[in-house]
Amino acid sequence: MTVATLGPAGTFSHELAAHLYGADIELLPTIRSIIERVAAGTAKGLVPIENSEAGGVGETLQGLMEFDVSITGEAYMPIRHHLAARGEPGRLSVIYAHPQTHEQCSVLLDSLGVEVVHTSSNAASAMAMQRDEHAGAVVSETAARIYGLPVAVRDVQNSGDNTTRFVEISAAPRGIAGCTKCSLLVDPQIDRIGLLADILAVFARRGINLTRIESRPSRRGIGKYLFFIDMVISDGWREAKEELKTMTAVRELGCYARMEVPGI
Amino acid sequence: MTVATLGPAGTFSHELAAHLYGADIELLPTIRSIIERVAAGTAKGLVPIENSEAGGVGETLQGLMEFDVSITGEAYMPIRHHLAARGEPGRLSVIYAHPQTHEQCSVLLDSLGVEVVHTSSNAASAMAMQRDEHAGAVVSETAARIYGLPVAVRDVQNSGDNTTRFVEISAAPRGIAGCTKCSLLVDPQIDRIGLLADILAVFARRGINLTRIESRPSRRGIGKYLFFIDMVISDGWREAKEELKTMTAVRELGCYARMEVPGI
Repeated sequence: MTVATLGPAGTFSHELAAHLYGADIELLPTIRSIIERVAAGTAKGLVPIENSEAGGVGETLQGLMEFDVSITGEAYMPIRHHLAARGEPGRLSVIYAHPQTHEQCSVLLDSLGVEVVHTSSNAASAMAMQRDEHAGAVVSETAARIYGLPVAVRDVQNSGDNTTRFVEISAAPRGIAGCTKCSLLVDPQIDRIGLLADILAVFARRGINLTRIESRPSRRGIGKYLFFIDMVISDGWREAKEELKTMTAVRELGCYARMEVPGI
Repeated sequence: MTVATLGPAGTFSHELAAHLYGADIELLPTIRSIIERVAAGTAKGLVPIENSEAGGVGETLQGLMEFDVSITGEAYMPIRHHLAARGEPGRLSVIYAHPQTHEQCSVLLDSLGVEVVHTSSNAASAMAMQRDEHAGAVVSETAARIYGLPVAVRDVQNSGDNTTRFVEISAAPRGIAGCTKCSLLVDPQIDRIGLLADILAVFARRGINLTRIESRPSRRGIGKYLFFIDMVISDGWREAKEELKTMTAVRELGCYARMEVPGI
């Protein structure tokens, strides 16, 4: 089956998809359009969900809230950014960078004193630099190669541990065999004191490890949130899930395993 | 004292600062530069911290983590976006929009089928449109007026309740008198099963309402988080704070009250 991921050619999503799935990849312009395509049942999708520097990816979390799709895998990709420039980086007219890339490389970029112009993807940064000889861009190895850009400074990310977690999404859930993790979307609906403490106690009482809890706006007005919760599948996890459903609205986003990435 | 906020002229930050503080406002290009200026002790700052559609503002949360500044007030601003265009919106070459504005107006923007180019602020969108007669931009009322742009479609935000919460930040904490809320930054450091449940139980046992919990990457590798917790000041809040400090690393980000916004 075709795998839809974020283009244009040379994004980290594209690079990871090529490693995981080989050739049958379709590049789409936005995360939302990928999730819509998966919901329509004609492709799987591969989308970034969180980065170790910049946090959750809003467009992906929002898409998971809105569309009836399942998470069927996860993969971790080390992120390395390079500053492409045709001359001295401090003398560039502008530097093109995706907003999350800017956050991930803020230490160097803020020290240069050059205006940073935001783009819609790392590959779009590369293309913007191609059109402007005085500009620089923060790009991946692959994008620098595809677009023929000279790298002036390698590894400009703030942290050497910079990693993005991606999820594979499908129209239907996968079977439970081999799964190690399960993602839930909890909608407390009512706002009572201690509700989140009670929700977390359901897992703590059973010794179930939660690897991530992220609040997102419910879009029912400011100060009202939903919670993305990832749990490790271990003894009692089904009972925890069922007990949770007696307390609050819960959607199962899917159970899955980590996909090993050949060649990374 | 001067109040530093996000420029250029016509941002929502600028509009709110003008309502709250009058004339002594300095417009800076990034949230990080505002927080640095406040930490240096020569200005107060006003920065967006969360939006009811797009969630937490990463640059502000990161700045609060990195710099020794205090939250000394909060204010809520209804956000209304308008599509500026010189002709038929569906026939524009591009539409300029800040990434969070794009998220907040995604329903209309995605339906138009016009390429959306991201900018560094709503005012930057207005300026980009000024330079390109075939382009449109998503802008505020104030920005449309300042930059002389015709509004083609009013109120293009997805939700009528679209609200941004801003915080006032200062170099030192304010006195407790009159404060209604207190913000904490909790760093669990070790990762043990049930720790967050135990942290939340400290408040729940005392009937203390938490208005917001947001996880942010700790920057110690993927899957390790800090937690921003906002609590309502009520009976037992000091004891809760002290008990929490026996369990985990806690930084007090400040106690504050809601600032009423004259004229909004």
